[in-house]
Amino acid sequence: MTQDQSNAMWGGRFAAGPDAIMEAINASISFDKRLAAQDIAGSRAHAAMLAATGIISDTDADAIREGLLTVLSEIEGGAFAFSTALEDIHMNVEARLKEVIGEPAGRLHTARSRNDQVATDFRLWVRDQIDAAVTGLRALIGALLVQAEAGADWVMPGFTHLQTAQPVTWGHHMMAYVEMFARDMGRFSDARARMNESPLGAAALAGTSFPIDRWMTAEALGFDRPMANSLDAVSDRDFALEFLGAASICAMHLSRFAEELVIWSSAQFRFVTLSDRFSTGSSIMPQKKNPDAAELIRAKIGRIFGANVALMTVMKGLPLAYSKDMQEDKEQVFDAADNLMLALAAMEGMVRDMSANRPALEAAAASGFSTATDLADWLVRELGLPFREAHHVTGRLVAMAEAKGCDLPDLSLADMQSVHADIRADVFDVLGVHNSVASRVSYGGTAPEQVRAQVARWKERLG
Amino acid sequence: MTQDQSNAMWGGRFAAGPDAIMEAINASISFDKRLAAQDIAGSRAHAAMLAATGIISDTDADAIREGLLTVLSEIEGGAFAFSTALEDIHMNVEARLKEVIGEPAGRLHTARSRNDQVATDFRLWVRDQIDAAVTGLRALIGALLVQAEAGADWVMPGFTHLQTAQPVTWGHHMMAYVEMFARDMGRFSDARARMNESPLGAAALAGTSFPIDRWMTAEALGFDRPMANSLDAVSDRDFALEFLGAASICAMHLSRFAEELVIWSSAQFRFVTLSDRFSTGSSIMPQKKNPDAAELIRAKIGRIFGANVALMTVMKGLPLAYSKDMQEDKEQVFDAADNLMLALAAMEGMVRDMSANRPALEAAAASGFSTATDLADWLVRELGLPFREAHHVTGRLVAMAEAKGCDLPDLSLADMQSVHADIRADVFDVLGVHNSVASRVSYGGTAPEQVRAQVARWKERLG
Amino acid sequence: MTQDQSNAMWGGRFAAGPDAIMEAINASISFDKRLAAQDIAGSRAHAAMLAATGIISDTDADAIREGLLTVLSEIEGGAFAFSTALEDIHMNVEARLKEVIGEPAGRLHTARSRNDQVATDFRLWVRDQIDAAVTGLRALIGALLVQAEAGADWVMPGFTHLQTAQPVTWGHHMMAYVEMFARDMGRFSDARARMNESPLGAAALAGTSFPIDRWMTAEALGFDRPMANSLDAVSDRDFALEFLGAASICAMHLSRFAEELVIWSSAQFRFVTLSDRFSTGSSIMPQKKNPDAAELIRAKIGRIFGANVALMTVMKGLPLAYSKDMQEDKEQVFDAADNLMLALAAMEGMVRDMSANRPALEAAAASGFSTATDLADWLVRELGLPFREAHHVTGRLVAMAEAKGCDLPDLSLADMQSVHADIRADVFDVLGVHNSVASRVSYGGTAPEQVRAQVARWKERLG
Amino acid sequence: MTQDQSNAMWGGRFAAGPDAIMEAINASISFDKRLAAQDIAGSRAHAAMLAATGIISDTDADAIREGLLTVLSEIEGGAFAFSTALEDIHMNVEARLKEVIGEPAGRLHTARSRNDQVATDFRLWVRDQIDAAVTGLRALIGALLVQAEAGADWVMPGFTHLQTAQPVTWGHHMMAYVEMFARDMGRFSDARARMNESPLGAAALAGTSFPIDRWMTAEALGFDRPMANSLDAVSDRDFALEFLGAASICAMHLSRFAEELVIWSSAQFRFVTLSDRFSTGSSIMPQKKNPDAAELIRAKIGRIFGANVALMTVMKGLPLAYSKDMQEDKEQVFDAADNLMLALAAMEGMVRDMSANRPALEAAAASGFSTATDLADWLVRELGLPFREAHHVTGRLVAMAEAKGCDLPDLSLADMQSVHADIRADVFDVLGVHNSVASRVSYGGTAPEQVRAQVARWKERLG
Repeated sequence: MTQDQSNAMWGGRFAAGPDAIMEAINASISFDKRLAAQDIAGSRAHAAMLAATGIISDTDADAIREGLLTVLSEIEGGAFAFSTALEDIHMNVEARLKEVIGEPAGRLHTARSRNDQVATDFRLWVRDQIDAAVTGLRALIGALLVQAEAGADWVMPGFTHLQTAQPVTWGHHMMAYVEMFARDMGRFSDARARMNESPLGAAALAGTSFPIDRWMTAEALGFDRPMANSLDAVSDRDFALEFLGAASICAMHLSRFAEELVIWSSAQFRFVTLSDRFSTGSSIMPQKKNPDAAELIRAKIGRIFGANVALMTVMKGLPLAYSKDMQEDKEQVFDAADNLMLALAAMEGMVRDMSANRPALEAAAASGFSTATDLADWLVRELGLPFREAHHVTGRLVAMAEAKGCDLPDLSLADMQSVHADIRADVFDVLGVHNSVASRVSYGGTAPEQVRAQVARWKERLG
Repeated sequence: MTQDQSNAMWGGRFAAGPDAIMEAINASISFDKRLAAQDIAGSRAHAAMLAATGIISDTDADAIREGLLTVLSEIEGGAFAFSTALEDIHMNVEARLKEVIGEPAGRLHTARSRNDQVATDFRLWVRDQIDAAVTGLRALIGALLVQAEAGADWVMPGFTHLQTAQPVTWGHHMMAYVEMFARDMGRFSDARARMNESPLGAAALAGTSFPIDRWMTAEALGFDRPMANSLDAVSDRDFALEFLGAASICAMHLSRFAEELVIWSSAQFRFVTLSDRFSTGSSIMPQKKNPDAAELIRAKIGRIFGANVALMTVMKGLPLAYSKDMQEDKEQVFDAADNLMLALAAMEGMVRDMSANRPALEAAAASGFSTATDLADWLVRELGLPFREAHHVTGRLVAMAEAKGCDLPDLSLADMQSVHADIRADVFDVLGVHNSVASRVSYGGTAPEQVRAQVARWKERLG
Repeated sequence: MTQDQSNAMWGGRFAAGPDAIMEAINASISFDKRLAAQDIAGSRAHAAMLAATGIISDTDADAIREGLLTVLSEIEGGAFAFSTALEDIHMNVEARLKEVIGEPAGRLHTARSRNDQVATDFRLWVRDQIDAAVTGLRALIGALLVQAEAGADWVMPGFTHLQTAQPVTWGHHMMAYVEMFARDMGRFSDARARMNESPLGAAALAGTSFPIDRWMTAEALGFDRPMANSLDAVSDRDFALEFLGAASICAMHLSRFAEELVIWSSAQFRFVTLSDRFSTGSSIMPQKKNPDAAELIRAKIGRIFGANVALMTVMKGLPLAYSKDMQEDKEQVFDAADNLMLALAAMEGMVRDMSANRPALEAAAASGFSTATDLADWLVRELGLPFREAHHVTGRLVAMAEAKGCDLPDLSLADMQSVHADIRADVFDVLGVHNSVASRVSYGGTAPEQVRAQVARWKERLG
Repeated sequence: MTQDQSNAMWGGRFAAGPDAIMEAINASISFDKRLAAQDIAGSRAHAAMLAATGIISDTDADAIREGLLTVLSEIEGGAFAFSTALEDIHMNVEARLKEVIGEPAGRLHTARSRNDQVATDFRLWVRDQIDAAVTGLRALIGALLVQAEAGADWVMPGFTHLQTAQPVTWGHHMMAYVEMFARDMGRFSDARARMNESPLGAAALAGTSFPIDRWMTAEALGFDRPMANSLDAVSDRDFALEFLGAASICAMHLSRFAEELVIWSSAQFRFVTLSDRFSTGSSIMPQKKNPDAAELIRAKIGRIFGANVALMTVMKGLPLAYSKDMQEDKEQVFDAADNLMLALAAMEGMVRDMSANRPALEAAAASGFSTATDLADWLVRELGLPFREAHHVTGRLVAMAEAKGCDLPDLSLADMQSVHADIRADVFDVLGVHNSVASRVSYGGTAPEQVRAQVARWKERLG
């Protein structure tokens, strides 16, 4: 229910008495009108099948199918007057169809029920959202690949515990999110494959004695097959929950990236500059730029996962088959889907627009003896020191550098050898942030060549 | 954002580009316009205080206060054109005020910021909802007391595990919900007392150098005092979370009662008949009556607790002071509050209308040897048998009754004495469901006299 | 942390001061010791790879691999003394390995870090749980198929709103759950395929400069491939969240079935008798049988979905790469997995043991003119009446039967024809619950032949 | 159930068959043994009352009360052998009592049931946790007051959107958390007052016919009164949910503070140095200090709020009175309480130990023209400029400073007057971070004098 309507409706707290209360709690047209296109597509497929199987005449089916297109154009044109007294989108459409085509409208509801009808409509709607999510993710990944390719060899700090741990590359960091969002695409795709079965023809809950052809309507609506159990067909809301689950994990990924962007935009980090389009400013502090879009994206996990909790709670302990509780499914999914698509689009825009502050990133990467691990690894690899001894030697060298107020690459070879005599000049090949990242060539590592290989792999895979 | 708008706005999935996306994610006017009355009340109090402390002139303050009333009446009359470009309710109101009264409008925002302004508005709105919840609970309790008084001595099964355990009275069962809903009232009242402090005057986050009087605005707006820390004042959303927490527990209570009503309305139980007003029927099965309102009430815990999860997730890990994430607070609370009030009103209506099916309740209460515990207690109390031996004797008598196909009160005294010789004729005083419930006179027990005492206590307490 | 330990540890509320507090909050050995087998498998694979790539000697690798087996057998035998001072399972195992084999133990940690190590261990553990869940679901489906085959033609009420709507078959109802649990299997399988990538070799976060072979360790541990981004490898907990998401939907299905079993076990329904093994009785009310197992299964969705909420909340807004927050992942998944497996096993046992009360089911199915829809459909199909007119005629016939105190099949043909003259004697072929269910032969419908076909399909599919 | 036990118990996945499964899912002794002290206190009070009301003899009551002390000391001493076959703590204690004192033990269970017994035990346990939480909060507030008092005039940046907005004081920031944690204390106290009613004497669900004195047992156990409805007494878990709700909001506060500490500890911020006791280091990077405790505290909201979700989900839709589902309440509350107390203690320790980096804080506070607002306010206050014009003038001055590469206080008066001729020399009194914070003397503002007043108020209030 839109807020304004609800405001009007029970601003007076139900002074109008029980009938108004029942109408307010029972009617769904205020929100399920979003299913109009799906409802009409489902009815058109149903009518064609009824004619093909001889249950109704071709003439009636043609009238119904034409009339439904008329109703659809009225709705799309904004000319349709939705009626709360008619409760839901199904009754609103059917009542208008009656006005438009007369008696044949009464034959449309043969061999179906509102239970399988709403299950079909909602499934079609969710399927569209899955496709939209995949499209949005693809675009976001595209934006990340552009950043990753450009910055395949820009060094930045790799953090653990928000403490500098080792240098990594900007491209590598971007590609981490490519992996996450690609998994999200996979989850949505799996959900789509699983949910792409048609409930239509389950009727109220038991199937029907009419000689319907459920495969025909399934195919017409793009489903892979009819659902195999009519009770399940009208009771199932797994598809909505699985969509919300995938959306929640995706929103979690967005929240992590958004958190980084907020932190990176702070005066203390200055790792990144967000575009004015996705920030807001201050009339008196011109340098201030608030990362509003990033903060709002960070917050979206709240309402998306909240919707998941809401629907899971609704479904807990519901006996078969249809219970009216299930009418609470739609608003949650509508809101979660709207906000997921919005967050994906906003994140894509931000990523396309943002510019990395390379000097700040590189300076930060070099601070804190971030290549100490590289030194220790060199001692193990080149001198054969056991891991723990290599750590001990490294610790002494770091302490020496700290005492001298310099970084590891600034120590002389003599300095090095004063701690461990076998150290050779080629140790300097692994010190310094550029050497460090270049050396991490293990599969999936941060070396620019690895990053570029991954960028290429993803570009090919996404076409 | 209302669904239609959003539909229109990103039906085309942001073809309009980044600016449209940013506007869609950033603007709050589509929902925060519900705060119009609170915003104007806050501004009027602020203007009066600015004049009283000499910060602005009385003339300016009068113009502002009058002008705000004009804006309010425009909004209430539906004549106000909200602008998304102006982002939120605060800017919409201020911009219109400028048009109405000219230059003095520019002085209203002295010594405040949108941060304390929105905190004040939202707090006032939530406070109103707490009051509405208490009113709704009081009405529901009133309806329960009517049922309890009428049925103080109607027997029905008391269930554990949905298995008949012991007879109780209808009135006693109703009064259990009175206790629950009264605790809900207490939780809302405590939340109100805790949140009733004014953020106004915290300004952006640090307070102000203007000589404002925060106690004056606090008093004008019905707050008990100003909040004592300006950072906290603009960062805090505890009041919204505590409201959602109280609403969630209340919704849980409603879900339990609704579940009972659904089960009790089944053909198998037939404990209760719901009125037509809160049910829906079938055009061809005249005896069928679906408990739609009860089912929808049962489901409301989903969205109300979902909103609690959503806001808690949003607030997790937010640094002080204001972050834009917090803009996600309102829609959750709006939706939860609307649905709580609706559910309370619907439940009150159902309770007022419903009629208990006394014969079915009594028959069910008497089945299953439900007074076996009374017999065992009699053996302990009157014959001094240890608890475990009393259970053993009772088990043998129940087995005897079952073998004879009768209930315990139908056994003869001789039958009784064949199992334990000391059993006397007055044992029959505790057998049978009416005797059973009449005997449970411990404080808070199910005896009609106890139920009536509790009804009287609550009537007096609620006035 | 197990409760007893925690009890002991801060029973005195940290009297021991900061060090004890830090140890209590920081150490994970009390719970992550459950990963011992996975940790050792991972280390053995790593050691073999280090030797194969020449990073360590074959001799060292052999010593390490043998020594790890010794440690594993100590742990499995209960002889291992876990140390909280050593914090976690990785350090406990490595320290013991050092004692067992001496110096070579120090080479095991070359080219890896605790970050990729724990990610590998936990992924292996979750993968095992997915396999266990699929096994548990397969067994449960097996039990349902037995029930469905036996009762393919037993009639029972099909409910909507817990009101009798149309007759269905017991087998059909059981098969609805087969569909649900089969979707659960699909979700777990998809999760397994997506998560079956090896983090090992990601090292701390950036990969390594050692010439490791991540494909070799991946293969040795049964992974399909190494993860493609080292930052992602140590930051990702999607696999745990997706497991919890699938487990939550599965638990929701279990809660629905359990709710039905509780209701069906009530004295009012008596649709089903649960075995003594999954019920508890009363010492004095011999007929009382509490469906404890069903109630506990119904409740499991709480803790399983609660774990999902917990981990999603933890992950919200975490910057890359590893943060210590992520240590909170394990206990949630351990608890959810344990309880899911337990609930599946208990449900399987209950389903195998339970017996349907056929007379009660059939009597309930026939009540309430449950075949009125069949009559209306007959009027549409055979007489060509429009749907709405057929409903009108049916309503009049039901009213007539109700007035006569009989059911629809008990009306005479003359009675029928007095309402609509064209009604023929073959109308009686669709009245009565057996005729009704037999007629619903649409794909996925409740007709016994359809149910048997679905049973056969599933038997073949599951092998 | 502790994880090890569960591991052992169904490591073999229930090979032992249905009986083992039922025992595993049904028995609660593995966790409810934590209620031993409460169970024995409740039983001792009950026995004393039974004697006082003449229901049992004084001799029996004395034996029972003494015997229970013996059992308690066995449990506390670790000598008690808990039995899973005896299912729960109540039966374990009673069985042992029988062994210790013989026949009189059988009289203890007179006029009560396990339903009111467990409700009493658990309520007492939760009440203790509320007291512990209040104690923990008081200690944490104490630590914050020390920090606030010391740093009442240390300037630091006040952030909005993690962007520097205005200077505030360290003390002011600390005091914001004092407000939050004090509200938490209030919520716990309100929950305590509401839940402090005794369920004892409700018996199974209907009360009892024994002449018990519920006020006497209530008083003995420190309850304010007996609960007024016996059905409610055994069905209610509000007290646990309200505890979890208060704990969740408290954990949210902790997560916000912990997030700040993590960010403040980064190399980029360096606002604060955490003690070694609450950090972990690196063997080779001596300057690295991971804020492990802060991260773990940040994460605790996950499991605490997850427990809230779990129990709310369990309670959704449960019919009265007792259902076995409710056995799932304890583990959630135990885990949440343990972790809340641990997090409070760790946070208190961190706060006591941490040292603010005053130079870094002050430098950050001064950056970004953070006193531009003060300049604008001066223009309004002293020159009477309208708010919007004042902003315009300020913007021009900031731009001038930026062009000159200096801060606002570094501009000359002539510079100032070139933008607005009326600006006077005393404008410099409000520029600069120390002037800025000193000027914000509105109630609750950041001025040191305001901060000191609030510290004094809280010290007095907390005693």
